[in-house]
Amino acid sequence: MKFFDSSTLIAQGLFEPSLPRKYPFQRIPNQFQKLLRKELWNFSQNSAGVSVTFQTNSTKIRIQWKIKKDFQMNHMANTGIKGLDLYQYKNDSWYYRSTGIPISKSNDEIIFENKKTKLRKFRLHLPLYVTLTDLKIGVSNDCKFLNSQLDSKNIVFYGTSITQGGCASRPGLAHTNIISRKTSYNCINFGFDGNGHLETSVGQLLSKIKANFYIIDCLPNVDMKLIKTNVIPLIESIRSSHNSIDKPIIFVEQPDAHDNYFDENIVEKNMVLKQQVQKAKKIGHENIYLIECKGSLGKDNDATVDGIHYNDIGYARFAKHLITELRKLNIGF
Amino acid sequence: MKFFDSSTLIAQGLFEPSLPRKYPFQRIPNQFQKLLRKELWNFSQNSAGVSVTFQTNSTKIRIQWKIKKDFQMNHMANTGIKGLDLYQYKNDSWYYRSTGIPISKSNDEIIFENKKTKLRKFRLHLPLYVTLTDLKIGVSNDCKFLNSQLDSKNIVFYGTSITQGGCASRPGLAHTNIISRKTSYNCINFGFDGNGHLETSVGQLLSKIKANFYIIDCLPNVDMKLIKTNVIPLIESIRSSHNSIDKPIIFVEQPDAHDNYFDENIVEKNMVLKQQVQKAKKIGHENIYLIECKGSLGKDNDATVDGIHYNDIGYARFAKHLITELRKLNIGF
Repeated sequence: MKFFDSSTLIAQGLFEPSLPRKYPFQRIPNQFQKLLRKELWNFSQNSAGVSVTFQTNSTKIRIQWKIKKDFQMNHMANTGIKGLDLYQYKNDSWYYRSTGIPISKSNDEIIFENKKTKLRKFRLHLPLYVTLTDLKIGVSNDCKFLNSQLDSKNIVFYGTSITQGGCASRPGLAHTNIISRKTSYNCINFGFDGNGHLETSVGQLLSKIKANFYIIDCLPNVDMKLIKTNVIPLIESIRSSHNSIDKPIIFVEQPDAHDNYFDENIVEKNMVLKQQVQKAKKIGHENIYLIECKGSLGKDNDATVDGIHYNDIGYARFAKHLITELRKLNIGF
Repeated sequence: MKFFDSSTLIAQGLFEPSLPRKYPFQRIPNQFQKLLRKELWNFSQNSAGVSVTFQTNSTKIRIQWKIKKDFQMNHMANTGIKGLDLYQYKNDSWYYRSTGIPISKSNDEIIFENKKTKLRKFRLHLPLYVTLTDLKIGVSNDCKFLNSQLDSKNIVFYGTSITQGGCASRPGLAHTNIISRKTSYNCINFGFDGNGHLETSVGQLLSKIKANFYIIDCLPNVDMKLIKTNVIPLIESIRSSHNSIDKPIIFVEQPDAHDNYFDENIVEKNMVLKQQVQKAKKIGHENIYLIECKGSLGKDNDATVDGIHYNDIGYARFAKHLITELRKLNIGF
């Protein structure tokens, strides 16, 4: 077999993929470390929402991946936290093929075997909640390996643990990855576990990205006070660059995933968000939108693993909701 | 708070709940140990498909649970393996409320809090893949606690790791639990990880249960040879008692969850199963049915975590498929 590693692989879902990185699939290049709080920087090294698209006629695909820390959580499968999954493009859609199941910090697995030699297009979704220190994709020696270019259209998602992918059973089932497969957009995942605080530092990063639009989905990580103080400064920080001066900024309400958490008044928080969005428009900001939460997770309460974090049912419904609502906004999506 | 423990709790999903057990929620009583292979017996001690239904007007519910072994798997969340989840009955349906998230062999968690005192009906689904050594349900001292009787109508499922619940994100999302909530049936889960071998020993157990019908869903654990040799003896062993002499036995085809596993010819296996079902009818067995796999997992390939085991999407679809197909069979379901 011949192997292609991070020194040559082109990935989707990275911010400025050509800039230097300590870890090959950290979402944000090294030079922005100083801009971010430590927590944000640490989570940004996780490969959430990152994928590698390639074509090969190999009858066998082998992957080898190493992770920085053998992290685990009690409400999320290791396959989602530190596994990889492979999709194949056929009949104009992406279809799941198989999962690289993590067994330790260093993993090696054949994730595709087929008797027929044929050029096939694949996408490998990288782990949601760990930092990859190394990834190698192996194909038969005599076979082609064409690593596709990035899609040119970008959506940037800024949010919480839910945005980062907690708790999809495998990476491909997180909503930013579903949306990237179902549309022709490169989705950049700026979900930071517990740290989606509507911060201007992240807004400054967002302003540097040539995105078609920005989705701000931070509400589960902020209280009413932070929504009031942070929404407009965040908009202003995103608007501070020519990249983003007129690009749609879309805020997302917090879904009422659960009615057991009495301390948190989601209805009121959503109302405060709506007021801030209206206020932003009133003071002259254009192309600011709000996606309401109604219907986003269905009515049966089964879309989460713990009342907060989405399971695979939740992500499938949420992705569908976002696609439907984005299409209504008349922003060329 | 006052606590109710396994010495008094009545559970659903157990075979002969009144008979002595080493562990309170092992699915099969001690006296049948000799009948079963060691692997079957070990897995039967897991509380897959077992639940406790109760009413209380307490504003707080606390659970304490201990497990025999702090088991984990790489493709299933700990919440599904060794956690518990709580559903509440309202508006004629069961709604998920919260999850008891396992953190060690011994766990203690408040899983319900509400400001209003009101009589509510709950169901607590027990862990899918570990053995509970102890469970305590706590409510406020001055409150009612009414542990409901078992439902009188039984469905018995005999199957594989998938039947046992691998890989639902939490216990309530395994299909036998979904079916138990959506119908008025007590579902007994005889899913044994890797060991659904269509065995007459299990058939003998099944024959001792007053079930409305039996669902045999073993195909992912057997090859063509075993299907040929075991299906009719299994039917005969189930038919060996007056409990089961005329009760429907329903075989389930193996879904083609995945097209990456070339070693296994699912289409052929399903054909052999169909032939055996036809042969059984021909030699005089009545009330033998087959549920086809077509459409059971949807068309998008996203219903599994690894190409075999169902994720939450898979279980939701499979439960719906089984309910729909069972209703077509004219067996009074």
